Amino acid sequence: MRVRKIKWAEEFLESQDVIIKDPSSMAGHWKEICHCDELHVEIGSGKGDYWIAMSQMYPQCGWIGIEKNHSVAAVALKKVENQMHDNRRFIVDDAKNISEWFAEKEIDVIHLNFSDPWPKKRNGKRRLTHANFLNLYKKMLNDDGKIIMKTDNRKLFEFSILEFQDQGFRCSEISLNFREEEHPEDAISEYESKFMAKGNPIYRGVWQI
Amino acid sequence: MRVRKIKWAEEFLESQDVIIKDPSSMAGHWKEICHCDELHVEIGSGKGDYWIAMSQMYPQCGWIGIEKNHSVAAVALKKVENQMHDNRRFIVDDAKNISEWFAEKEIDVIHLNFSDPWPKKRNGKRRLTHANFLNLYKKMLNDDGKIIMKTDNRKLFEFSILEFQDQGFRCSEISLNFREEEHPEDAISEYESKFMAKGNPIYRGVWQI
Repeated sequence: MRVRKIKWAEEFLESQDVIIKDPSSMAGHWKEICHCDELHVEIGSGKGDYWIAMSQMYPQCGWIGIEKNHSVAAVALKKVENQMHDNRRFIVDDAKNISEWFAEKEIDVIHLNFSDPWPKKRNGKRRLTHANFLNLYKKMLNDDGKIIMKTDNRKLFEFSILEFQDQGFRCSEISLNFREEEHPEDAISEYESKFMAKGNPIYRGVWQI
Repeated sequence: MRVRKIKWAEEFLESQDVIIKDPSSMAGHWKEICHCDELHVEIGSGKGDYWIAMSQMYPQCGWIGIEKNHSVAAVALKKVENQMHDNRRFIVDDAKNISEWFAEKEIDVIHLNFSDPWPKKRNGKRRLTHANFLNLYKKMLNDDGKIIMKTDNRKLFEFSILEFQDQGFRCSEISLNFREEEHPEDAISEYESKFMAKGNPIYRGVWQI
């Protein structure tokens, strides 16, 4: 996702209580902070539509959004300025450090929505479904935990199917055209609706340990 | 595939030497019969385009076509009447008996092309990628053997991905739009080209034991 650098981003982010500035200090305590029994973490929240909508649709769950790009994160958080809800928090940092932020088995569901496909092979390690990332997620997921991935990028999805398999995950659900059926239980971001408007199929898979 | 019942089918099939009438008697001997080191079996050959084209493209391999519908098989075999090639044979029978026809580990590659999706759940056992079939295939495939599946039916492909996984197969290749790239190594049947003309993606996967 490309967003022009936003001048007011730094100052704005500094003032937002929803952002957890030192996420490592919260490891093991996220469910307390969010007053929930079920913790959802979205890696790569972009402009925040999914994180916001889902945290409203499922107030009984905790929702942690993660976005490393400061300008993008600022756009996301501007949408919920002055709307503090106990069940959502945000981390503005690179997910490569994610294992420092959560305790083992602390997360119930990891969401990967329209992640950057990094199409060039030499950038394969940057994909959020690269083996290196999957092995980080594995530690943080509880025994019944799952990873839910959605993308419109065919090559990324093909890569991910094999990568999850090779890291010992079991695919429990797969759809190669998720929005062909109605799924009112799952929020559609502006980003996703653009792909849908183009007629692109949305691929979705659920993987468990 | 729906084909009107062909009156001349029975008499015609009776006269075709390419058909192995008692396939059980050939178990363990298919590679000798076909003068090959690599045995390919297509289950559900329909009107025979793929079986014919591939047996011509890969004359060093043996190609066994299987089709249970007599009228459909007659259409297929009419195309190669009087063109006997050592490297191809045909079985006109129901693949549910396939394990009687081949010895353990005799087959190198099983091809499933545009198999009947049997969309109703109660017919799930008829799908050629149902667990019951997969376990038959497993015995007949050699240790490096593989199953190559192509289909334009999304639901069948989704079902198959999970079914292969749950029966302990490993997916080694997957494409969710196989014909978006050129694949001169793989023949396109008339049946397939109709789906391609409609703009449907062709799904393809390769599974190994």
